[in-house]
Amino acid sequence: MEPEVIRDKEAMRRWSRAMRSQGMTIGLVPTMGYLHEGHLSLVRQSLTLADVTVVSIYVNPGQFSPTEDLSTYPSDFSGDLVKLAAISGGKVFVFNPSNLYDYGGGERKKVNTGGGRVVSCVEEGGGLGHETWIRVERLEKGLCGKSRPVFFRGVATIVTKLFNIVEPDVAVFGKKDYQQWRIIQRMVRDLDFGIEIVGSDIAREKDGLAMSSRNVRLSDEERQRALSISRSLAMAKASVAKGQTSCVELKDIIIQQLVGSDGRVDYVEIVDQETLEGVEQIKSGVVVCVAAWFGTVRLIDNIEINITL
Amino acid sequence: MEPEVIRDKEAMRRWSRAMRSQGMTIGLVPTMGYLHEGHLSLVRQSLTLADVTVVSIYVNPGQFSPTEDLSTYPSDFSGDLVKLAAISGGKVFVFNPSNLYDYGGGERKKVNTGGGRVVSCVEEGGGLGHETWIRVERLEKGLCGKSRPVFFRGVATIVTKLFNIVEPDVAVFGKKDYQQWRIIQRMVRDLDFGIEIVGSDIAREKDGLAMSSRNVRLSDEERQRALSISRSLAMAKASVAKGQTSCVELKDIIIQQLVGSDGRVDYVEIVDQETLEGVEQIKSGVVVCVAAWFGTVRLIDNIEINITL
Repeated sequence: MEPEVIRDKEAMRRWSRAMRSQGMTIGLVPTMGYLHEGHLSLVRQSLTLADVTVVSIYVNPGQFSPTEDLSTYPSDFSGDLVKLAAISGGKVFVFNPSNLYDYGGGERKKVNTGGGRVVSCVEEGGGLGHETWIRVERLEKGLCGKSRPVFFRGVATIVTKLFNIVEPDVAVFGKKDYQQWRIIQRMVRDLDFGIEIVGSDIAREKDGLAMSSRNVRLSDEERQRALSISRSLAMAKASVAKGQTSCVELKDIIIQQLVGSDGRVDYVEIVDQETLEGVEQIKSGVVVCVAAWFGTVRLIDNIEINITL
Repeated sequence: MEPEVIRDKEAMRRWSRAMRSQGMTIGLVPTMGYLHEGHLSLVRQSLTLADVTVVSIYVNPGQFSPTEDLSTYPSDFSGDLVKLAAISGGKVFVFNPSNLYDYGGGERKKVNTGGGRVVSCVEEGGGLGHETWIRVERLEKGLCGKSRPVFFRGVATIVTKLFNIVEPDVAVFGKKDYQQWRIIQRMVRDLDFGIEIVGSDIAREKDGLAMSSRNVRLSDEERQRALSISRSLAMAKASVAKGQTSCVELKDIIIQQLVGSDGRVDYVEIVDQETLEGVEQIKSGVVVCVAAWFGTVRLIDNIEINITL
């Protein structure tokens, strides 16, 4: 049974409040659509945590810079509904709004809001347009924040909007986007949202490749080479298990694997799981994060390493 | 009957959800305590809009810079309860938390988070401390934002925290703090909070002085001179009614009055009521905003001028 689709944000909130008034708990899985098995694993997890689950499908212009690929972002809405139908059991609902930054009324004149600051596709509106942004000031800086300065500001803001529209009890995020998950978790703590944030383990293909909408863009040969990412992360974890604690040495193992497979490294970092600050010697739980290009495709992956001393 | 005081944020949210599940609507009046008649008029208005009203009393360190007067901010909690008792009718509840930026656990090391950016009293914690901030990027810039760069960031953030803890249906803000009211209104629109924001007219003393906690710091003589603020605003409004539309001329009237009363002008601005952008010729609704010092006391006041052409 295909899930019911709700497009209006007021209707979404009414639905959600009606559910809650009946004593139902609500899960939320925010997505940008073009669903794959990784997304579906988040939905399945949400179904175990709440009575009903809302899957939002919305490509958020607020997290794209004007030079990024907003207009070519892939979509397959009818295919998404078919995939969700297979697991919904009548408990999955889709929120698919048109433009969450259009508040109606008021002129919208084009203004320059740059001035050296980060600007996303949303600010091109200007005038009475959207101008409120949430920043998780330390966590947003490192890792993917370096190459994508508007990204996490846009993610934090759209997730807040979705939280306020759907008013869920629990929301599930993939640990594949580790920094995003930690940023949302911190934001929820700092802004006192009454919402539980759950991080869901990375879904992988049988050969180890972390699932991603971008994987379809890899050629067969690039895909083979890209397996060096998950392989090198596993090697680093095994090395820690054997006693290696030097992050320089561990990063070296990974970089050798990636470069040996003709990957172009964006970053390899070993950071504290909560603060995402770089670590030199492993003394407590860390996460090893990788971003690397294979051909024209940038892939990210990571592995948590928990040690007890 | 003195209002019930709730201090724990989880207890506050439980109370609020219990109220809502009984079909009650909830009003919120955020304050920093030391209540005067202006605050009480907000509470009275909230009581007409919702079944029960929560008055939060919390001096927010997030809106003070380290050089401002956080430690000497006046308080009179028992006096506040007595004042609220006189109007509560059993429908007013007080939320009085201790520290809304202490999330427990985790080391808090002192770090320099400055780097040329705005820093409030909260960031002095650092480490695993609070790091999420909301900015209403255009509206926060002008008027009081110029002299107080951390102020509105702190206000938007604490109001969001209070919204998420109290989960009200309606929140009442004084138009005395006109820029603050518009910022909150814009933030609620941009972040899709399901909360109605009501602006309440300025409460004035019999002689016209806008009510403020700071008025008690004025000497009798300063207070007499400070009446030039409300008097000059009324003169400007009367001048518009007679056909004056030049903002240069109107501001001149006000400045002459203030300076003639030995006031030190921080700013006199005539701005669009929604965008708060400066206006040169009055063609639609504007608000005239004044900030001026009398002795060591900085006072603000404003008057809306609505014209139909």
